[in-house]
Amino acid sequence: MKKQQIYLDYSATTPVDPVVLKAMTPFFSKKFANPASLYKKGLEAREALELSRLTIARAINAEAGEIIFTSSATESNNFALKGVAFAHLPALRFGMASKSRGKHIIISAIEHDCVLASAAWLQKQGFELTIINPEKNGVIDSQKIKNALRPDTILVSVMAVNNELGTIQPISEIGKICRSANVYFHTDAAQAFGKIPLDVRAMNIDLLTLSSHKIYGPKGVGCLFIRKGVKMEPTMHGGGQEFHLRSGTVNVAGIVGFAKAAEIAVATMRDEQQRISGLANKLIAGIKSTISNVELNADVQNKVPNILNLQFSFIEGESLLMLLDLNGIQVSTGSACSSEKLKPSHVLMACGLRPEQAHGSVRFSIGRFTTEQDIDRVLEILPKVVNDLRKISPLK
Amino acid sequence: MKKQQIYLDYSATTPVDPVVLKAMTPFFSKKFANPASLYKKGLEAREALELSRLTIARAINAEAGEIIFTSSATESNNFALKGVAFAHLPALRFGMASKSRGKHIIISAIEHDCVLASAAWLQKQGFELTIINPEKNGVIDSQKIKNALRPDTILVSVMAVNNELGTIQPISEIGKICRSANVYFHTDAAQAFGKIPLDVRAMNIDLLTLSSHKIYGPKGVGCLFIRKGVKMEPTMHGGGQEFHLRSGTVNVAGIVGFAKAAEIAVATMRDEQQRISGLANKLIAGIKSTISNVELNADVQNKVPNILNLQFSFIEGESLLMLLDLNGIQVSTGSACSSEKLKPSHVLMACGLRPEQAHGSVRFSIGRFTTEQDIDRVLEILPKVVNDLRKISPLK
Repeated sequence: MKKQQIYLDYSATTPVDPVVLKAMTPFFSKKFANPASLYKKGLEAREALELSRLTIARAINAEAGEIIFTSSATESNNFALKGVAFAHLPALRFGMASKSRGKHIIISAIEHDCVLASAAWLQKQGFELTIINPEKNGVIDSQKIKNALRPDTILVSVMAVNNELGTIQPISEIGKICRSANVYFHTDAAQAFGKIPLDVRAMNIDLLTLSSHKIYGPKGVGCLFIRKGVKMEPTMHGGGQEFHLRSGTVNVAGIVGFAKAAEIAVATMRDEQQRISGLANKLIAGIKSTISNVELNADVQNKVPNILNLQFSFIEGESLLMLLDLNGIQVSTGSACSSEKLKPSHVLMACGLRPEQAHGSVRFSIGRFTTEQDIDRVLEILPKVVNDLRKISPLK
Repeated sequence: MKKQQIYLDYSATTPVDPVVLKAMTPFFSKKFANPASLYKKGLEAREALELSRLTIARAINAEAGEIIFTSSATESNNFALKGVAFAHLPALRFGMASKSRGKHIIISAIEHDCVLASAAWLQKQGFELTIINPEKNGVIDSQKIKNALRPDTILVSVMAVNNELGTIQPISEIGKICRSANVYFHTDAAQAFGKIPLDVRAMNIDLLTLSSHKIYGPKGVGCLFIRKGVKMEPTMHGGGQEFHLRSGTVNVAGIVGFAKAAEIAVATMRDEQQRISGLANKLIAGIKSTISNVELNADVQNKVPNILNLQFSFIEGESLLMLLDLNGIQVSTGSACSSEKLKPSHVLMACGLRPEQAHGSVRFSIGRFTTEQDIDRVLEILPKVVNDLRKISPLK
């Protein structure tokens, strides 16, 4: 008999919702035309594209013309940072950086790898970088952003919800600070969308990243909200698609799926987060009552319920992950992207954990298809597995 | 009754082959895991990814580790040019460009917009650019490439098959010239793959671009072949996927579809190009016998059969396109990407056509699902439509 599989890694990626797949399917083989084509079939594809754009825009209180479709949150984050940076490059080149805006970027230490790596690359190109550490609870203090602003700061990038801890960042406050200082504010909202309300106007956001595959849409699709008026240099050059900001034949089927997924995510958010909160509370209460020396990483008051990052003393996260996998339960240590590196999480380290504490941490992320029975099963298996690992642990 | 639709714009994009869609489908909602995840379901996705990589590699005589998946040919072409350019940037910065390799790039004038625009952007960043015009028949003279080489040339980029004319470029010759001169050679093979044999070893190709949606695979997927040893700077920074050369969660379903499409394209190439050649010959003979003042743009001896670019005197291509569309026939003027611009094709202009000749040109592209009956129908409608347009033409 095939073992029951319990997927608790929804923050790494999600299955495509069958409703989403159904919405996408006609655009593969029937309504397949290139939306840039002039004939009616092209128009049909273009209409689907523009309707999708409107759906995404409405979900974050943006205008349709402010949504640029990309291939992923990684591309959107690269585009946000490099697009703003390169748009400011002439000033830098002509030596005006010290007088006008020019070369300083602020990010947080708990950003996703793609923000960190894009920023590091820009530093190599001559830009200057300030990295703000989080508080111990995994939340960025907006005052520290304010204090780091310089006359030549061009961009602040702080994610909305951290992917490893689930901590909600004070993006409204940071937005306000940046708007007052006339500095662009970008937020990576890949983990926030469908989990917390997002309003780019009320929150003073200039650039915002979304991902399809984190919200039960297909992989290979994302978007960047670019507020009207923001100066951006394209990073993908070519045929001039997406308002001349992001070239390349538009992935209509993927985008239609992304929009359908966004529509569902927004419509079900309140009820779904409440349901997931119940499951998360049950999981954590069950764990605390059966396993000793376990800590929740991150401020419980200031996080989305769907992510639980737990620190188990005396064991290694990877071993726990493997043993749970043998029992049909999928969880992760850190983000999926960096899982192959086996380095301690940069997020947990930035929060002040010691390497062995970071290594002993595992992320459980709950999602749309998680049931009460799944949690029961985890509570049945997890204590045993932790106990077995601790018995043989050299760390005790 | 719904009008019969005859799609003759396969070079703009293709429908996903039902066999391809079937191969992709399990990876949306069932085998959906992130291939970077450590558990078994992640491994399952990783295996599908690596099998796909091997399939694509074999199709062009590359090794699996030389295939980097991207979101499109546009991304691959951007990556090829900028990746090589930025890898040479340190030499440029430290003033060694004149002594060592550094800042000179050669492309052809008939490249796709994404190559032209990437090269132009690099020029803005301080690189130097030589653009080689084609001969009147739409083919690049490899000697002109050779003559344009300089001691500081770092890259030559010439496409394998032109997307508007179907002309086959002498990439083997250019490959040989570049290899002798120790200069990287990139070819955009988006329109060549599945149409002519490609062998990166025999042809001395260092970088080669492929696209999924041109070969009955899904949109939003492409790849760049990077020969082992080629120095490349990533352009998409982040989690380190794709051998640390192209970050972003991997689009497994799309890639599986791409590989299946590639497999079919290679297996059926010979028979299919023969069948299409027959249809093309029938179309062109029929047109020549019923319509006066019509010319085939491009050397008939040196082109793929699936693309026919025809110049109709006294009429505008866009008008012809619209009237054919009303009759259920889809064709295009120039490439889909630039169709919204209504400028005369840069490819035709580079071949020496006058603007009115370029404007009077229309591309018919034949594909997998084109039938003999489709061609009959076109031959029935086209002469009438051309005649009607000429009657009211002010150009006569």
